[in-house]
Amino acid sequence: MKAAILADVRLPDGHISGLGRADIEISDGRIVRIVGAGTSAADGEERIALNGALVLPGLVEGHIHLDKTLLGLPFVPHRPGESVAERIAAEKALRRELAYPVEDRAMRLIEQIVGYGTVALRTHVDVDMEMKLGGLHALLKVREQVRDLLDIQIVAFPQSGVMIEPGVADLLDAAVREGADLVGGLDPAGIDNDVKGQLDAIFGVAEQHGVGLDIHLHDFGPPGCSELREIAARTKAAGLQGKVAVSHAFALGSVGDADLDKTAGALAEADVAIMTNGPGPVPMPPVKRLRAAGVTVFAGSDNIRDAWSPYGNGDMLERAAVIGYRQGLLADEDLALALDLATHSAARVLGLSGYGLVEGCAADLVVVGAESVAEAVASHPPRLLVIKRGKIVARQGKRVPIS
Amino acid sequence: MKAAILADVRLPDGHISGLGRADIEISDGRIVRIVGAGTSAADGEERIALNGALVLPGLVEGHIHLDKTLLGLPFVPHRPGESVAERIAAEKALRRELAYPVEDRAMRLIEQIVGYGTVALRTHVDVDMEMKLGGLHALLKVREQVRDLLDIQIVAFPQSGVMIEPGVADLLDAAVREGADLVGGLDPAGIDNDVKGQLDAIFGVAEQHGVGLDIHLHDFGPPGCSELREIAARTKAAGLQGKVAVSHAFALGSVGDADLDKTAGALAEADVAIMTNGPGPVPMPPVKRLRAAGVTVFAGSDNIRDAWSPYGNGDMLERAAVIGYRQGLLADEDLALALDLATHSAARVLGLSGYGLVEGCAADLVVVGAESVAEAVASHPPRLLVIKRGKIVARQGKRVPIS
Repeated sequence: MKAAILADVRLPDGHISGLGRADIEISDGRIVRIVGAGTSAADGEERIALNGALVLPGLVEGHIHLDKTLLGLPFVPHRPGESVAERIAAEKALRRELAYPVEDRAMRLIEQIVGYGTVALRTHVDVDMEMKLGGLHALLKVREQVRDLLDIQIVAFPQSGVMIEPGVADLLDAAVREGADLVGGLDPAGIDNDVKGQLDAIFGVAEQHGVGLDIHLHDFGPPGCSELREIAARTKAAGLQGKVAVSHAFALGSVGDADLDKTAGALAEADVAIMTNGPGPVPMPPVKRLRAAGVTVFAGSDNIRDAWSPYGNGDMLERAAVIGYRQGLLADEDLALALDLATHSAARVLGLSGYGLVEGCAADLVVVGAESVAEAVASHPPRLLVIKRGKIVARQGKRVPIS
Repeated sequence: MKAAILADVRLPDGHISGLGRADIEISDGRIVRIVGAGTSAADGEERIALNGALVLPGLVEGHIHLDKTLLGLPFVPHRPGESVAERIAAEKALRRELAYPVEDRAMRLIEQIVGYGTVALRTHVDVDMEMKLGGLHALLKVREQVRDLLDIQIVAFPQSGVMIEPGVADLLDAAVREGADLVGGLDPAGIDNDVKGQLDAIFGVAEQHGVGLDIHLHDFGPPGCSELREIAARTKAAGLQGKVAVSHAFALGSVGDADLDKTAGALAEADVAIMTNGPGPVPMPPVKRLRAAGVTVFAGSDNIRDAWSPYGNGDMLERAAVIGYRQGLLADEDLALALDLATHSAARVLGLSGYGLVEGCAADLVVVGAESVAEAVASHPPRLLVIKRGKIVARQGKRVPIS
């Protein structure tokens, strides 16, 4: 499909702009024109009649673990662990038993999420003294294989800790040299019990290579907020504003107002973004309040049927609904906000260029059988079409060979 | 379909019983035999090959509002209200504008939930000075129309309060005389500000007619727990053990251990059941802890795209997953517990006779494309078949004319 018109579609802001139904003209992988419906196709242009379906900018997955999923295997019962450390050990034991390589599992999950309309993602990949860079190498290969399907950003993630696993800091450095886009971190207090040590190490690698960071932080309450402020301070000191994210940040949902406001202010000032998946049983960051304070909040699936959780499917429209449900987002504008976490805000954090549903942007689009953004989020109905750089990659939720 | 064999299926306890694949023989609306796979059909028996799909007892919806849904209408933006009273007023205003009758909306929702495998439900129906018994009369008609599809139990629900709406108590009495199965209630403290008054009124109606109660209770914290204990005490005094439920009971998720244990003990002793839908932004009853204390906990959808919430679809397998996700239920046995809330526990609360997946029970079944109960809950994949009293009522999630 070199040039095409997505004809007679609804736009996300349709009821606001008053544009009514629209035609979107695509050429050479870009959106070249958005006009009122009723245009006719030029020579060589395909006309795809969409009968009032809603077009959204492609969904952006802000936090996934492509190397962890067990999708494609017979259902693997969850092995419980009381502490994060116990669960890490349980995952390692399971990993040793698996005869199903990272590449194959990652590809299985990618096929699924492309069907849901994800056009770009940030994945973490375990880097520890057992896997070393094996997972990274697998995902680098996968990234190359699917480059026409979606954009992949890789975080070298020290799932087993940094300071308590001598050698991991060097591996993170090697990971970035070999192609990882960002450096990860994990509970500097809760896992390493050495906030200064871990942050020195991971910010050191980031500064040396000029890359960003995305740090898993499960630590709760005031200690977790203190870590967040320390991360913000180091981000400013290193001139990494806009390149650092903290994933989960449960602490922001488990402190008093004063601590919350102080921490949100520090995050906003350092432009440190917060990723949430709308967790079930634990407190979560208050999305609207953080946004009001100027903090960028974005969405991710996190675990998708892996050693950590049997739930999840990688549908970022459903994830927006999970976050919205958890946060009591009900009004249309609040449901639009939930979608923003999985579209524009996530795209900004990933630094995607040319992202959006306006003329000149990349034609990365998802077509949904819904009347409005609010309905698309609340009901997350099937995806009719997914388009990556102007080419149809999925229809009716199923991957198709690229046109 | 008079007699049939569901051939080569997985059973919910397959991996425990070691039975492996099984055949389920159905005749005259009942399960007559469950044996190892490989039997052949007798004369006049249909053989339905299911290739290892999972068979579950039909799903039971413990709390729905068939009269409230806006499904089938163009998406209606949510109108916010700060307090419960404001939201009640917003709903009434919307209701007056709707040209789409209760019967049609209820039927639309029933078509959908039958496709998901629901075989029985408890619905609340608004009874107030404006609707009077209009909603009840509509649902009584619908119940008659769909009697071959699913069993419906109706609660006369004073959505606008009892004591603050003079005349409602008499309407509740009339509702039961005209066919409602249970009496409802609503926040005796939070809405009526008269715990004794409302409980006197609704228990009075229940006792006079010998019916049960199902009371909406959103009141939080120690005051909510005190109401729960008062309900338990009145249940015992009226000899209504096993016939009273409290829906939502957020209070059980928002008090200290001592208050929780005391209240759970009182509920267990009076056999008062607790319904939860796994609410998003508010604390919820701790399911495992309540069950350990002997309290029956069951599941319901509550609002499905109505004036109260844009979310929800009526899929009780997904609802089990929402509750499981909110409660951190991850291990296979905990996911089985989540399913139990929407099957056996709900069936017990509704007083369904002959419910279950054993020989002699009603052939109310749902067939799921999953390998185990854990997978069925965590992924809630499409329903292959839904069977009500031995007849196929839905295939691939879609309603079919009854065979």
